[in-house]
Amino acid sequence: MKNVITISRSFGSGGREIAKRLADELNFAYYDRELIDAISDETGLSKDYIEQFSEGHISRAYPIHIAQTFLMPVVMPSDSIQIAQTNIIREAGNSGNCIIVGRRADYILRELKPFKVFIFSSDMDERIKRCYKKVPEDRVKSPKEMAKEIQKIDKNRAKYYNYYTDQDWGVMKNYNLCIDTSVIDIKKAVELIISALNI
Amino acid sequence: MKNVITISRSFGSGGREIAKRLADELNFAYYDRELIDAISDETGLSKDYIEQFSEGHISRAYPIHIAQTFLMPVVMPSDSIQIAQTNIIREAGNSGNCIIVGRRADYILRELKPFKVFIFSSDMDERIKRCYKKVPEDRVKSPKEMAKEIQKIDKNRAKYYNYYTDQDWGVMKNYNLCIDTSVIDIKKAVELIISALNI
Repeated sequence: MKNVITISRSFGSGGREIAKRLADELNFAYYDRELIDAISDETGLSKDYIEQFSEGHISRAYPIHIAQTFLMPVVMPSDSIQIAQTNIIREAGNSGNCIIVGRRADYILRELKPFKVFIFSSDMDERIKRCYKKVPEDRVKSPKEMAKEIQKIDKNRAKYYNYYTDQDWGVMKNYNLCIDTSVIDIKKAVELIISALNI
Repeated sequence: MKNVITISRSFGSGGREIAKRLADELNFAYYDRELIDAISDETGLSKDYIEQFSEGHISRAYPIHIAQTFLMPVVMPSDSIQIAQTNIIREAGNSGNCIIVGRRADYILRELKPFKVFIFSSDMDERIKRCYKKVPEDRVKSPKEMAKEIQKIDKNRAKYYNYYTDQDWGVMKNYNLCIDTSVIDIKKAVELIISALNI
C-alpha cells in the first residue's frame, strides 16, 4: 500500500473532514494546520502571519512596484515559510504513514509517489451550507457573497499551487482519485480511499 | 442507488474494460459500440460511416469552404447521427439499469442525474502498452507515434464533447468519480464504482 496520502480539496467540499477521518481510521499522522505550528517553531514567525502565506495570497508576498524590491531582504518572509513548509512536508513524507492536506504536498513529495486524492463538490449550494456551519457568527455573509468568497479561496489555492509548482491545481491528471462529495458522502469517500489503497 | 452510469475515458486508460466488467457484475445493459448498430438501424447509414462521426472527427463533418454549404442538405449526415445517437441514449437512460460509454451521454442524460465516472491513466507508457495489445499487427507504430495517436484521439474526443455540449471534456467538476488506472487497477476501479453507487 501507499503510506503517504495527499488530500487536495476545493473549499467547502468536506476535504478536511475526510482527511481527518482517514487519519483516525488508518492511525496515520495528520498534517493540516499542524504544519503552521511546526513552521512557527522552525521560523519563529507568528502563526497568524504564516497562515496568510502558507497556502495562498501570493500577491501579498510580492511587491507591486519593482522599486520596492530594493527594500526587501534577499529571502522574503514568504520564501522562508515556503522553505520551512517544504522541509516539514518532506520529513513527514519520509517518515511515512501520514496524510497531508493541501499545501502542494502532492508536488513536493512527487518522488515518493504518494496516493493523491482531490476532494471537490460540484454543488455550490452544498458548499455554502457546509461553510455556514463553520463560519463564526460575525463573519456570516449572504449565500451570494459566500459563493463569491468560496470561489476566491479556490482561486487563491490554485494561484498558490500553480506559482510554486509546474502543474495546475485541480486538473484531474495530477491526482489518482477525485471524489465529488455532492454525490458521494464523506463516510463513503473515506471508505473508497481506504479501499483504493488496498489495505 | 443511481441506475444510470456514464463512463467517460481517455484513450488507452482501460475505461471500456471497466465499463464492460461493471455491466457484467451489475447485470446492467451496456452501450458502447452497440450504439453504432442501433444508429445504423435507425438511420440506414453504414456502421463504418457512423463510427467516424459518432464521437469525433468534427472537422470532417463540416465543410472548409462556406460555398460548399450550398451543396449540403439541410440536415447533414453527421447531424442525423447525433440526433439518432441522442435519441437512443435517452431511451437507454429512461429504461435505467444501464452503462453508457462516452458519446457525451453524461451531458445528454444530465436531467436524470446519472453517476458520472471518468477513467484516465496518468502514465503514458501504460497507455501505450494497453494499446499495443489491441492494435492489429498492420497498424502497429513506434511508441512515440503511438503516444501521438493517443493524444490525437483524446483531442478529438474533447473536441467532439466541447462542440456538442456547453461543458469541457475531462474537467473534474463535470464528473462524480475520476479514477487513475495507472495507480488503481481495473478490478479495483470496478469495485470502487460499485461501492460508490451504494449497492
